[in-house]
Amino acid sequence: MAKVLTSKSENYAQWYNDLVIKADLAENSAVRGCMVIKPYGYAIWEKMRDQLDRMFKATGHENAYFPLFIPKSFFSREADHVEGFAKECAVVTHYRLKNDEVNGGVMVDPDAALEEELIIRPTSETIIWHTYKNWIQSYRDLPILINQWANVVRWEMRTRLFLRTAEFLWQEGHTAHATKEEALEEARLMINTYAEFAETYMAVPVHIGTKSESERFAGALETYCIEALMQDGKALQAGTSHFLGQNFAKAFDVQFTSKEGKLEYVWATSWGVSTRLMGALVMAHSDDNGLVLPPKLAPIQVVIVPIYKGPEQLGGISETAQKIKKALEQKGISVKYDDRDTHKPGWKFAEYELKGVPVRLAIGPRDVENGTVELARRDTLEKNIVPQDGIAAHIETLLHEIQENIYNKALRFRAENTFEANTWEEFLEVINNKGGFVSAHWDGTPETEDKIKELTKATIRLIPIDGSAEQGRCVYTGNPSERRVIFAKAY
Amino acid sequence: MAKVLTSKSENYAQWYNDLVIKADLAENSAVRGCMVIKPYGYAIWEKMRDQLDRMFKATGHENAYFPLFIPKSFFSREADHVEGFAKECAVVTHYRLKNDEVNGGVMVDPDAALEEELIIRPTSETIIWHTYKNWIQSYRDLPILINQWANVVRWEMRTRLFLRTAEFLWQEGHTAHATKEEALEEARLMINTYAEFAETYMAVPVHIGTKSESERFAGALETYCIEALMQDGKALQAGTSHFLGQNFAKAFDVQFTSKEGKLEYVWATSWGVSTRLMGALVMAHSDDNGLVLPPKLAPIQVVIVPIYKGPEQLGGISETAQKIKKALEQKGISVKYDDRDTHKPGWKFAEYELKGVPVRLAIGPRDVENGTVELARRDTLEKNIVPQDGIAAHIETLLHEIQENIYNKALRFRAENTFEANTWEEFLEVINNKGGFVSAHWDGTPETEDKIKELTKATIRLIPIDGSAEQGRCVYTGNPSERRVIFAKAY
Repeated sequence: MAKVLTSKSENYAQWYNDLVIKADLAENSAVRGCMVIKPYGYAIWEKMRDQLDRMFKATGHENAYFPLFIPKSFFSREADHVEGFAKECAVVTHYRLKNDEVNGGVMVDPDAALEEELIIRPTSETIIWHTYKNWIQSYRDLPILINQWANVVRWEMRTRLFLRTAEFLWQEGHTAHATKEEALEEARLMINTYAEFAETYMAVPVHIGTKSESERFAGALETYCIEALMQDGKALQAGTSHFLGQNFAKAFDVQFTSKEGKLEYVWATSWGVSTRLMGALVMAHSDDNGLVLPPKLAPIQVVIVPIYKGPEQLGGISETAQKIKKALEQKGISVKYDDRDTHKPGWKFAEYELKGVPVRLAIGPRDVENGTVELARRDTLEKNIVPQDGIAAHIETLLHEIQENIYNKALRFRAENTFEANTWEEFLEVINNKGGFVSAHWDGTPETEDKIKELTKATIRLIPIDGSAEQGRCVYTGNPSERRVIFAKAY
Repeated sequence: MAKVLTSKSENYAQWYNDLVIKADLAENSAVRGCMVIKPYGYAIWEKMRDQLDRMFKATGHENAYFPLFIPKSFFSREADHVEGFAKECAVVTHYRLKNDEVNGGVMVDPDAALEEELIIRPTSETIIWHTYKNWIQSYRDLPILINQWANVVRWEMRTRLFLRTAEFLWQEGHTAHATKEEALEEARLMINTYAEFAETYMAVPVHIGTKSESERFAGALETYCIEALMQDGKALQAGTSHFLGQNFAKAFDVQFTSKEGKLEYVWATSWGVSTRLMGALVMAHSDDNGLVLPPKLAPIQVVIVPIYKGPEQLGGISETAQKIKKALEQKGISVKYDDRDTHKPGWKFAEYELKGVPVRLAIGPRDVENGTVELARRDTLEKNIVPQDGIAAHIETLLHEIQENIYNKALRFRAENTFEANTWEEFLEVINNKGGFVSAHWDGTPETEDKIKELTKATIRLIPIDGSAEQGRCVYTGNPSERRVIFAKAY
């Protein structure tokens, strides 16, 4: 069978785009930069969303919903925020169309201009802190631990499915606290929650750290992030959690009376992950045959394909297949039995490989006789004949093994693609020829950071949170440095 | 304790608004007509959404996500649709802001006007059928059974929390079929699914029927609806399911090759329910003390309040409370133990009544001694002393009883407020003085329908789907009629 994907080695970007489209994850829409998330892609996103939602609730958060629109003036309230955010966004200026008497169709009604234009939320700090002002009077009203699942819009010029789209789906947590310490703790709790999700469910190892000042979220005093390495050696920021200090409380005048009776500004965090995680999931594990999905996020964990000639053979096979399906489902494993007669087994094999189904069972007439099935693993592409007896328990264990194997493979890849650079020559050599994460000393100035970016396109992905102090010399300027940071080219 | 709500009998509209706000369901936002759904309200919506989602999946549907934006020109493609929809909507005309050098703050960048304006979806038929064109070639690609959970915007002039807001949350199903019969069957399946949801989960009895031509969805050949009766005698449309014929397939040129090799237009349905259901839920059951929530949708099903003096008493009570909580949770019942020392028991009682928690347990020192608890039902406000022994099983049964009782109460209310009118005088008498559903003959013309609406504000809520034929005379014109339809004033 001809390969349907461009190979990774030939053209990684094209491979990614082919894969997202051919595996029915998403496609471009009629609206520039906006994607359609197709049912199979959405089913994966639902699994990610539901798991994250459980983790947010387990850490004491509640969901709520705030307006899609933000009054234009709100953006000017927090000075850094407006610089970072308010520029490339969708602006609603009118609220009515009318029939176009001249050209036919409809036109914007010039009599229906809004008094104040509305911005489609690129993120919701401003409208939420405007709302919190009415919710918070006393320390008894704190903390507020709210999350929102929503769509947001950032008018990106160059877009790529899942990785960078004008509209995307995400969650944004917005919390309010009585003390700085509590807010900082919350910001760290959530970045750790993201890291746990990425590693345990997505099987993607991540580094946790903070951003340099110039890479920080607009309005944040500290941005925590998780960074993952993709198979082309580029980094991908998979989630961020911001300690916002009292900036938004001051911008929206949100004060509370403390236990001691003093009026104080509230401390804030915000944190988010988005459908970008779908891009990370695809790029971290997949191969030239298609997706490789970790079992914990696979909408179909096991597919059963009958190999038969004629309806008589199919009857016996279906009986066996249904029995196995039922046994697996009783263990909470999701199974699809694909007995369509419109497609050949070979086509189905390729299709489910493309879609990353972790385990494939093929059952032929001889298997029925022998009490066996052919079992194929998507991660290693290994095939084995296994007994039907005890197959559900076998597959349950195997799914855990596959989850672990995918994670370990990604971890090995990251280890093999993480380098130390101690001189500018070494740095250039790694960044230009190898890619991956580069651990190097940096003098801590934005000027050096900018210069390195300009010369190599590499950015500081993070300042490791657990990075032990190490005296050294900046890889570019030779000035003194207190610790290594991690550079990479990034998505 | 002073009542926090305006009483229903005094001012129903004010009672509703008070209740939504005081029970922490939702509030108005800084953006005209857009609401903030607060955590408690959102928790109820989540329960509704999750249950509906399970029912959609059980009937073979998958979720997907389509863009928020719709190109303006798409609305002109289906003639009826543009008349019905494209007028009052939010229009995006620009994609960038810039610093306002004169007035400070930010302004819309006049250089960033879109070539074609984008409409925030008021509903997604157009963008989805534009997408389906690429998905459908052959009968093998059909049916497509897709649902989307999304926010939509309709620029309403007079808004009311949940009932009519500029932005609201909803689901919209969009299905594509090879035959008219199959599409009709789908439209009916989904209205029946909505009815089952309303009656079984919301405890709201509904009538199922079709809309008259003038009340139909813009672009539909038939609109099925469910209609519920609120406690003020007004009807509320709780869900609609549309048979769209081939209108959108023709507008977006979506054809398929049939089994017989013929090129044919695809048949369509769409169906939706929204956060408006929250309004129906509140108005159908609640009283002057606050919400009355059916147990199946209550975020907290049982609340436990300790009655104590001093930490010593609290210790023993908490032990008992935790034991009961654990036993209830093992049965899948959600429990809150409110041992806050910042509020008195009386305040807590009023608070959980306001929030509609179905069962309240109060435990005092004497209860600990006697092995009893005080149990209060929210629906009947009855209180009883019950033994701790077997309390989990008792409450499990009781929650079912409460669910049924709330439904039966609403059913009785509807029966008592449904009238037959056989003359115009009777019709006026009922509509003006009693309210409720009025079953009456209608001559089938839009002119008569309009006239009745003009004179009484009553509209045809539905033509009963199971209405047996009955010869009669139109209540207004006296012209012949084939069957009764149901009139009411409506939300």
